[in-house]
Amino acid sequence: MPLSPVPDSRAVGLHLPHHDGSRRYVSNLAPRLGDLVDVLVRVPLESEVERVHVRTTPDGETEFAPGRLVRTTATDAWWRVRLTCHNPVTNYRFLLVGGPAKYAWLNGTGVHHRDVPDASDFRLVAHDSPPPAWAEGAVVYQIFPDRFARSARADRRETPDWAQPARWTDPVDPRPPAASSQLYGGDLDGVVDHLEHLVSLGVDVVYLTPFFPARSNHRYDASSFEQVDPLLGGDRALRRLTTAAHERGLRVMGDFTTNHTGDAHEWFLAAAGPGGRQTPERDYYIWENGSYVAWLGVPSLPKLNHRNEALRHRIFDHPRGVVRRWLGRPGRREGLDGWRVDVANMTGRWRATDVNHDVARQMRASMARHAPEALLVGEHFHDYTVDLPGDGWHGVMNYAGFCKPVWNWVRDTAGDPMTMGAPAPLPVLEAGAVVETMRDFTSRISWQSLVHSFNLVGSHDVTRLRTLVDHDPRLVEVAAGLLFTMPSLAMFTYGDEIGMEGAFGEDGRRPMPWDESTWDHGILDVYRALIAARRSSDALRHGGLRWVHADGDAIVFLRESPTETALVHVARAAHEPVTVPVRHLAGVETGRAAYGSGVRVGKRAVTLKASGPGVRIWSWAPTDDGVRFRTPRARRTGR
Amino acid sequence: MPLSPVPDSRAVGLHLPHHDGSRRYVSNLAPRLGDLVDVLVRVPLESEVERVHVRTTPDGETEFAPGRLVRTTATDAWWRVRLTCHNPVTNYRFLLVGGPAKYAWLNGTGVHHRDVPDASDFRLVAHDSPPPAWAEGAVVYQIFPDRFARSARADRRETPDWAQPARWTDPVDPRPPAASSQLYGGDLDGVVDHLEHLVSLGVDVVYLTPFFPARSNHRYDASSFEQVDPLLGGDRALRRLTTAAHERGLRVMGDFTTNHTGDAHEWFLAAAGPGGRQTPERDYYIWENGSYVAWLGVPSLPKLNHRNEALRHRIFDHPRGVVRRWLGRPGRREGLDGWRVDVANMTGRWRATDVNHDVARQMRASMARHAPEALLVGEHFHDYTVDLPGDGWHGVMNYAGFCKPVWNWVRDTAGDPMTMGAPAPLPVLEAGAVVETMRDFTSRISWQSLVHSFNLVGSHDVTRLRTLVDHDPRLVEVAAGLLFTMPSLAMFTYGDEIGMEGAFGEDGRRPMPWDESTWDHGILDVYRALIAARRSSDALRHGGLRWVHADGDAIVFLRESPTETALVHVARAAHEPVTVPVRHLAGVETGRAAYGSGVRVGKRAVTLKASGPGVRIWSWAPTDDGVRFRTPRARRTGR
Repeated sequence: MPLSPVPDSRAVGLHLPHHDGSRRYVSNLAPRLGDLVDVLVRVPLESEVERVHVRTTPDGETEFAPGRLVRTTATDAWWRVRLTCHNPVTNYRFLLVGGPAKYAWLNGTGVHHRDVPDASDFRLVAHDSPPPAWAEGAVVYQIFPDRFARSARADRRETPDWAQPARWTDPVDPRPPAASSQLYGGDLDGVVDHLEHLVSLGVDVVYLTPFFPARSNHRYDASSFEQVDPLLGGDRALRRLTTAAHERGLRVMGDFTTNHTGDAHEWFLAAAGPGGRQTPERDYYIWENGSYVAWLGVPSLPKLNHRNEALRHRIFDHPRGVVRRWLGRPGRREGLDGWRVDVANMTGRWRATDVNHDVARQMRASMARHAPEALLVGEHFHDYTVDLPGDGWHGVMNYAGFCKPVWNWVRDTAGDPMTMGAPAPLPVLEAGAVVETMRDFTSRISWQSLVHSFNLVGSHDVTRLRTLVDHDPRLVEVAAGLLFTMPSLAMFTYGDEIGMEGAFGEDGRRPMPWDESTWDHGILDVYRALIAARRSSDALRHGGLRWVHADGDAIVFLRESPTETALVHVARAAHEPVTVPVRHLAGVETGRAAYGSGVRVGKRAVTLKASGPGVRIWSWAPTDDGVRFRTPRARRTGR
Repeated sequence: MPLSPVPDSRAVGLHLPHHDGSRRYVSNLAPRLGDLVDVLVRVPLESEVERVHVRTTPDGETEFAPGRLVRTTATDAWWRVRLTCHNPVTNYRFLLVGGPAKYAWLNGTGVHHRDVPDASDFRLVAHDSPPPAWAEGAVVYQIFPDRFARSARADRRETPDWAQPARWTDPVDPRPPAASSQLYGGDLDGVVDHLEHLVSLGVDVVYLTPFFPARSNHRYDASSFEQVDPLLGGDRALRRLTTAAHERGLRVMGDFTTNHTGDAHEWFLAAAGPGGRQTPERDYYIWENGSYVAWLGVPSLPKLNHRNEALRHRIFDHPRGVVRRWLGRPGRREGLDGWRVDVANMTGRWRATDVNHDVARQMRASMARHAPEALLVGEHFHDYTVDLPGDGWHGVMNYAGFCKPVWNWVRDTAGDPMTMGAPAPLPVLEAGAVVETMRDFTSRISWQSLVHSFNLVGSHDVTRLRTLVDHDPRLVEVAAGLLFTMPSLAMFTYGDEIGMEGAFGEDGRRPMPWDESTWDHGILDVYRALIAARRSSDALRHGGLRWVHADGDAIVFLRESPTETALVHVARAAHEPVTVPVRHLAGVETGRAAYGSGVRVGKRAVTLKASGPGVRIWSWAPTDDGVRFRTPRARRTGR
């Protein structure tokens, strides 16, 4: 007997009540402390719900407020509740009373007929410096500078002592020490040379893995945070790149390692050198029994001691720290538009010390002062939910709540590992479990944190998508379809768009081939078309997320903004048609295919067929079955 | 159509792998930082699991360690993994590889075939001052001093100006202002007079609601924390009570309000009086626009400002603070054995301030220094799970993960509200949903926190059990059966044991009738017998918890200690017999009925029948199918 048929799937569908944190359902996505915010919930008439209440927990005690029925459509009753942002985080959930169910909670994982903990409550985050609005829905292109493109200037540079030079067409050697010492000589001017490629893709943001000087090709072992690696062209090259990118409407993000430096870092040389015990830098690192603590024990990566206030000042508040030195200031053309933070999950954590949230808060606060339009996204490989209270990192790399579930759905079933660190191959799951996993993680953070996180189906650290699906371009499309249609920023790695391969992180860090005859133009067309669909759709960039169907080989959902609804159907294999009653999709008959084909809008039902893996997007202007918000008049000061 | 058949129940049963935080499965329940701890997991052979790994997240990064197969019994493979308490909290979960399921996680909510967040991981808490061992499994008797008993000394006291005197036989008037001003005159010497009643019940701990001077019968509006209310007999009466209790082997806990004082408190009088703005006490409270903030807006309960270090010093560290003034010191006969903390969930929380965990940590730390054997339990009416990281309150009042689920199962279906604050009657649920609710909450705290929490099926704040079940003594037995057989301390309120009634908190605060002819002796016998069964059973006091069956009207579970197993069957109604294969219950045939009757042990199966509501406990010494721990040799200092 197997381990039991545990019911891992929860119900989804348009017959269920719905709320999410998007502006279709919430009047203010970036409230301040004390603000009033209206929230809407739609409750199907067939549920016979008689009353709706909202439960909050101001100052740690539960409080109930009655909802007001504000509109009834052919299918749904819309209820409105006014919330007060009494605390920085306002948890809320709906209590639905009446009908056969009598008593049900609606939270971020759906409908529950029993009490559930607060973790998946919806939440509003009130913060004086909300995350930047520009980031919502953006498409991010990740570049590993040594491998993306080599400018003419690169030929004039000498190979440093630690490096093994490689020609652009040499194969990657993923074995140590070559994995980190093989140097192809890509540089930032190489990125400038190819910005038009990014523009033609429809990308919004270029995210560069580290550009600081280091003694490896990945440069996560920085020897300084105060200059750009001369091998990449130095500070001037970064200035050229950010200027050129901004001229094309692109933004640029860097990659900063809060957790550690390289052992050749100027601070570490001072701390560990002769007389190091007497230096201020000594205490920038963690010492035990005379030795320094290193990231996962790797000697070249000494771990920073974030209990040291001087270190944090030097990084975050000093004029030459990473916030003020590198981020663009309002009105300036140069400078970065944000940081991705490496090993964010381990930062400030060592034995009995845990100042992780303090570090994130301090970096956020410094950015709010000096670069209020910059984005801050932390790396997090596992459960990030407790590390996103809303006042630190704006978002995270969503491996746990997006990448892994998508992998669980599309990965090659015959192929092996794709373990992402676990000592067993990832399982292949049905759509129900996949969607439940996504909801389980993403429901535990605010909508604001979700839409400022990076969705991804791969990165420089893991298997390339095309290899993951055993070269099946249709499954590449399926995964990319989810990537470009779901909420959050969508990040992919240079070369994914032309079908670049790689069985694991280092193996995937191949030089980008600029001979277009080697590209998979079919995949490139898919990426271009999906990104174009996203760029042109208010619903796909800014809409909420409402699950319609998740079973076996099919996932169907709605993205809903106040002005547009997009119906997305993604199939990993042929399946029986899925039908959705037209009455739940007011205006659907006026829509158009924004991507793919095969959506049939009948009189009574929309039929979604799949004869194999594929993606379909159908979008329309909803014939308003929703409710317009009136802005609550004033901040409430009392309670 | 109802709101959907959401599958709220997860599988339970002896065919599933099992681990819990008890000493049957964990080698050290109170480790220190750096300690090695062995954990065991039992995996049914029929699951065909081939490998077991444990996943931890030291310093915020996942790490896997292989399990070692240490024993195979007729039904299970036992695997052992050695963990290092590298951080104060060590989350761990098991990865089971192989068999038809291929890949499954085992955490505190059971088996999962998809990724789940870390919240329900098992966890070890390493702390230099673990919670007191004496508390595990104890039975707590809650006394509301004004209503329990009146000593001869009471007659000599004058009625204060705020009070309406009542005779012991007068009915309670639960309407304001009488609800708080009706004074019956019970006192601490009254408790001394009736300690034999508690001894005869088998109680371990007397927990007194506040004894500080106040201007109400409930005394949650203290006017001082430095003396016992003279109306209760003053400091000397408390000394007499603690001495008498200790002589009988009973412990005594008090009730302290960290969140607020009364508006007649000496500090508040100084702060709010003439010249108050210049007093140090002014900042002990929270002021907005010249007014003080009060608990839920009730003017008589000004809220304390725990950002003020002087206040916290005065409460927790000062010689006359609540820790040092009132708690017993090692070797002394007088003094309290712990505090229950009122409104713990709101303490230190107001608008943008949240120092709740700091307050709990400081109180714990002060107790560790001055009264290391004292217990610290916080009141918490809803989701306590994020407020028990393990370094603050030892435990909480488990309304969310025990009281409400039990109410959901046993409450009178015809009767109305029992709302516990919600604007709708609590639903009546099947056993599957009830058990799932319990697991959902209790899996999110450490075993150490769980067994130092108070289970309860009522209190001075809510409906009395007998009223809740519409006077059905059989359902009183069912609820009490769960109370006295499940892990945690078991708390009940004076009078529950004789069938006292009350539709809500104030209504239930009736004077204890000492004319025994008015008692429900049937209920008294049930309480005595269940408590006796618990006291005499190592499994019921100290064992783990393994769910066997939870469906509809029946709940069946095992409590397992290294030396004893107890099989508990609780039925809220007649149901089809439940059978458990004997091969999973090694030694069951040598057992005996510890409570109730109707357990039939056959050759192949144990059959559990119920012809109506009832409770059965069958216990035996397991013919060792487990594994003995060898103590890990030394603290590990590196990683």
